[in-house]
Amino acid sequence: MKAVQYRKIGQRPEVVEVAKPQPGPGQVLLKVTAAGLCHSDEVVMSAPDALGYELPMTLGHEPAGIVEELGEGATGIEVGTPVIVHGCWGCGVCEMCAAGKEMLCLNGMTSPGLGSDGALADYMIVDTPRRLVPIGDLDPVRAASLTDAALTPYQAILSVLPKLKGGTTTVVIGVGGLGHVAVQLLRELTGTRVIAMDVTQDKLDLAKECGAHEVMPSGPDAAEAVKKLTGGRGAHVVFDFVGIDKTAELAVACAGVEGHVVLVGAGGGGVKVGFFTVPSNTTISTSLWGGRAELGQLVTMAQRGQIHIQTRTFSLDDVPKAYQLLHEGQIIGRAVGVPSL
Amino acid sequence: MKAVQYRKIGQRPEVVEVAKPQPGPGQVLLKVTAAGLCHSDEVVMSAPDALGYELPMTLGHEPAGIVEELGEGATGIEVGTPVIVHGCWGCGVCEMCAAGKEMLCLNGMTSPGLGSDGALADYMIVDTPRRLVPIGDLDPVRAASLTDAALTPYQAILSVLPKLKGGTTTVVIGVGGLGHVAVQLLRELTGTRVIAMDVTQDKLDLAKECGAHEVMPSGPDAAEAVKKLTGGRGAHVVFDFVGIDKTAELAVACAGVEGHVVLVGAGGGGVKVGFFTVPSNTTISTSLWGGRAELGQLVTMAQRGQIHIQTRTFSLDDVPKAYQLLHEGQIIGRAVGVPSL
Amino acid sequence: MKAVQYRKIGQRPEVVEVAKPQPGPGQVLLKVTAAGLCHSDEVVMSAPDALGYELPMTLGHEPAGIVEELGEGATGIEVGTPVIVHGCWGCGVCEMCAAGKEMLCLNGMTSPGLGSDGALADYMIVDTPRRLVPIGDLDPVRAASLTDAALTPYQAILSVLPKLKGGTTTVVIGVGGLGHVAVQLLRELTGTRVIAMDVTQDKLDLAKECGAHEVMPSGPDAAEAVKKLTGGRGAHVVFDFVGIDKTAELAVACAGVEGHVVLVGAGGGGVKVGFFTVPSNTTISTSLWGGRAELGQLVTMAQRGQIHIQTRTFSLDDVPKAYQLLHEGQIIGRAVGVPSL
Amino acid sequence: MKAVQYRKIGQRPEVVEVAKPQPGPGQVLLKVTAAGLCHSDEVVMSAPDALGYELPMTLGHEPAGIVEELGEGATGIEVGTPVIVHGCWGCGVCEMCAAGKEMLCLNGMTSPGLGSDGALADYMIVDTPRRLVPIGDLDPVRAASLTDAALTPYQAILSVLPKLKGGTTTVVIGVGGLGHVAVQLLRELTGTRVIAMDVTQDKLDLAKECGAHEVMPSGPDAAEAVKKLTGGRGAHVVFDFVGIDKTAELAVACAGVEGHVVLVGAGGGGVKVGFFTVPSNTTISTSLWGGRAELGQLVTMAQRGQIHIQTRTFSLDDVPKAYQLLHEGQIIGRAVGVPSL
Repeated sequence: MKAVQYRKIGQRPEVVEVAKPQPGPGQVLLKVTAAGLCHSDEVVMSAPDALGYELPMTLGHEPAGIVEELGEGATGIEVGTPVIVHGCWGCGVCEMCAAGKEMLCLNGMTSPGLGSDGALADYMIVDTPRRLVPIGDLDPVRAASLTDAALTPYQAILSVLPKLKGGTTTVVIGVGGLGHVAVQLLRELTGTRVIAMDVTQDKLDLAKECGAHEVMPSGPDAAEAVKKLTGGRGAHVVFDFVGIDKTAELAVACAGVEGHVVLVGAGGGGVKVGFFTVPSNTTISTSLWGGRAELGQLVTMAQRGQIHIQTRTFSLDDVPKAYQLLHEGQIIGRAVGVPSL
Repeated sequence: MKAVQYRKIGQRPEVVEVAKPQPGPGQVLLKVTAAGLCHSDEVVMSAPDALGYELPMTLGHEPAGIVEELGEGATGIEVGTPVIVHGCWGCGVCEMCAAGKEMLCLNGMTSPGLGSDGALADYMIVDTPRRLVPIGDLDPVRAASLTDAALTPYQAILSVLPKLKGGTTTVVIGVGGLGHVAVQLLRELTGTRVIAMDVTQDKLDLAKECGAHEVMPSGPDAAEAVKKLTGGRGAHVVFDFVGIDKTAELAVACAGVEGHVVLVGAGGGGVKVGFFTVPSNTTISTSLWGGRAELGQLVTMAQRGQIHIQTRTFSLDDVPKAYQLLHEGQIIGRAVGVPSL
Repeated sequence: MKAVQYRKIGQRPEVVEVAKPQPGPGQVLLKVTAAGLCHSDEVVMSAPDALGYELPMTLGHEPAGIVEELGEGATGIEVGTPVIVHGCWGCGVCEMCAAGKEMLCLNGMTSPGLGSDGALADYMIVDTPRRLVPIGDLDPVRAASLTDAALTPYQAILSVLPKLKGGTTTVVIGVGGLGHVAVQLLRELTGTRVIAMDVTQDKLDLAKECGAHEVMPSGPDAAEAVKKLTGGRGAHVVFDFVGIDKTAELAVACAGVEGHVVLVGAGGGGVKVGFFTVPSNTTISTSLWGGRAELGQLVTMAQRGQIHIQTRTFSLDDVPKAYQLLHEGQIIGRAVGVPSL
Repeated sequence: MKAVQYRKIGQRPEVVEVAKPQPGPGQVLLKVTAAGLCHSDEVVMSAPDALGYELPMTLGHEPAGIVEELGEGATGIEVGTPVIVHGCWGCGVCEMCAAGKEMLCLNGMTSPGLGSDGALADYMIVDTPRRLVPIGDLDPVRAASLTDAALTPYQAILSVLPKLKGGTTTVVIGVGGLGHVAVQLLRELTGTRVIAMDVTQDKLDLAKECGAHEVMPSGPDAAEAVKKLTGGRGAHVVFDFVGIDKTAELAVACAGVEGHVVLVGAGGGGVKVGFFTVPSNTTISTSLWGGRAELGQLVTMAQRGQIHIQTRTFSLDDVPKAYQLLHEGQIIGRAVGVPSL
């Protein structure tokens, strides 16, 4: 079968022919219907040590598929069921996994495409049926990216949901694969006013389409503009989906008293936080991916028509090119690999 | 000046001529522009002891007005400012008032129209400037009822906001003055699916206009219908804006595991709650009116066009008739007295 | 091997000889070291339909043991490890299980001693290693009851933890197997003043030993006494570990404005709750058992010497007698069956 | 009367003779019984612009006193009542003040000793009776510092209270006037294990007396030691009561996955926070002073004997010397000025 693999540190991903895998005891074989591409894949491929993952490794941690075969003892799901796969493959036994937070597994995740073979292939192995969330008749291309591009901003939003009361203002920095879903989710889940920021006009246009009340370039005047739009108060909540120094600093500069800044983007930067360097009772937190229960909630939202992930599809053969476009910032919304194309 | 007063226990309200009041030290004189009528007024007028309030008493606890005169030492607001009045007049010093929860004042509230003279008159006295919330150019007829008809459901919704994640279902029982605002607020502030229930078709139509996803009669089959709509799970949150035995029981019957039932309506009834009589980890809570900070949040929401209280205006002379219609269930939305009519 | 079984509806439990079980794929065989007895067992044995459980069934849902053998594919634990067993055996895949709340499993739990064979035997089968919590060198007799007698009150306390600020007062009704641990946990985990109530002096003495600041009979004057001790305010939090009408009504009567009553006891009763029948903004909730993550937290607490479950041990042969004593209210603290005795 | 004043930028505080003040309308005259000294006073006196405060200004923002005289219209308190004074003098009308968070007043606080004349004098003016919290027969020397030295750590602890479940570990960096109360409060209010750090042995001894389970120098090995004590997991919560770069960095280094670092100390430093520079889902927040409702809770705790602020008293004449000792780190616990000495 075909698989898009990261094979050697420093090289670009390649499409290769590999053997179709067999499900071991308790495992599930999935026929892949769609698999999202993510900036995190770029993080892996640009890390000098591939984050320690063993190579070659099939990429893709946003899987949608159909249950093809069950390993011995694997129960709880029927062959033929269309599903998406929760990608936070924790140990299942530590205190975090026990609490439904496998993304924080104390023993480390071994996720598909991030430690084990991922979804950018004709078939993939899922380690246990409890990763699977049935999607009914949702379009798999739209559903695949719920697993990260929607789950990550959703979990970040949940972490501040009680603060998003009436009359609040929220800033979203970075309207990429995650950020454009964040704008939609904020509009659907809260009554906050959404100000979206990015560097190019097409991203700002996308933000508008997704429901942002205001859009503006994330330049040096952005924080001042937010202060002005909020009568001097500053934003109640700010999400940084980029994560470089400049955006993290901008995020803090946009926040007002008792504000909350959530750092989600894996850009490698940060911002200095001290008692006098931020407004009183500011909170800064980081948010990594999300839980399986929360993924189920997103599927219900998608079934109700509340989430529309903008996608651009690629055949497996074209996935390396898609990564290149992603790298160059040329992808609007989410790139999705589709084996059947 | 004219005032609509409840003058004697058991009698209907009357329009009378009284002296224009003078603001004492620290007080504010308001020229009333609008004042909402509320079912609670009916509760007072049907109580055998008028809830202990001294009579005669001018009715009206949902005031909008313009600052006419400041008593000695009253500061923080300008003459001429259009405002609405937070009606929870607590002592300001007990632990609840100190925490911004004057509606729970341990020394008891003395609210306008509920212990002191209210807003259904040409002028009214406000005990301190800190009750006032400026409304800018909001229509006072629409703004007046923010103080109760919107604040009460808003506070009730805030009490469960963290539970209203994606994919949830919420039931609203009673689409009257409060309930129809609750439906709007739920749609604006959350992503929950809203099922509204009432006994007449015009109320169900109003619920639909306010954004309810589903409406149904609050009859004996309603709980079963909710279970069906939720795949057997039951609702995550239920609000009872009626508060008789039948609706409280219906509310609990609609809730699923870990559900939350908020009892808001002052109908005098209730429901038996025990470990085995409700689904596992059910919560039942009561919610009374709301805080001043929260009222400010609602004003911002109204300024953003997120709340539209359906109103029917009456001159002060017609307010007694309006109470009669309210009593008979003939008012759709909120009845509002307007001195200038 | 020996097993204490509930064999036929209406009969008392019996000690019988049964075959030693074999662990299937993914399962674990445990050599039982201790197993707590619980009032819930009495609830099962007095239900006309045995709550629908198939009989005969070995009793005991508070297991401690040593891993004896691993079924095929069972990993994550070593043979020889001393453990206790989280008894909430949910499906593992529903939204509740996914969120770490297996006690609320939407597909129903099949717990040991409550649907499948339990721990009052020489050996028991655990369905998956992820139920197991290692206890190191904790005394298994003391540790066994962490799984319910401590976990249940602990989870109930966690549900109100943010409300137990400084200066609060908490009432505990019922100082039995769960209640006496609740008193300790409240003293360890919060700064609240604890008032404990029960009907006999020995239980009140136990409450004192566990750290209760005040004890009193749970009679008709108890609510008045609580009001007096709190300067008229009433308790902030009340736990009812009995659950009959009388105690549920007492619980609500003890609570003050914004109070929270948690119903934990499975006594089959309840209390009528309505907007006017409880103080403003009262919350009533029910709380069932607890989560595995929370059980791990309790083990840490026990290792730190923060929990001391009062126990009285019985050989398996004497367990039927122990149930009789429990039924008669003669057990102080927790009865524990010990196979090695 | 005598007053300890900060008179000119860059000079040390002086004891001067000034006129006894008269209470204006709505104000209260207090005969001061005790007034705590605080590191924040040093922050003011070392700022090049005195933080913008008008000089000369009487110092002291931790007042205890007896109501001596009420201004016209001031009600709600009796002459002769022993009280402490909540020092967060906000405007009372903004959204933060309305929510009981006057320390975050959007219009800025004008606190005693921090903008208006403070408590280090024979008498002081309180702007409104609602700042006063009666203390009954509590020793004013012990009670005065509840207003900041206890309120500040208490509010900081409340901000993380729901995270301080059983089995957690908390680090307190800095065992000075605030930190030594933080240790006590953590022991009283939570079941967490407390690790205290400071640079001198006498502070570590004080931490031990206050109930810290472990103490250690806040040196370069401290974070490693915390990791070791927590089995590699890191602390759940860390408080930095110093606030220089080194301590803020240490605070973050001590925290584990999903940890929470609260920056309280006004040392002027900070720490860089980014997605990859802190453990997953870390939260960093700042916490400023506290609310009046919370101060009332502390008074109840003190009356129950749960807080013992270590104090060293000074006559007003000796207060300048006390500031010198404070500056040099020579004060163990809290320095308190006592006019009657």
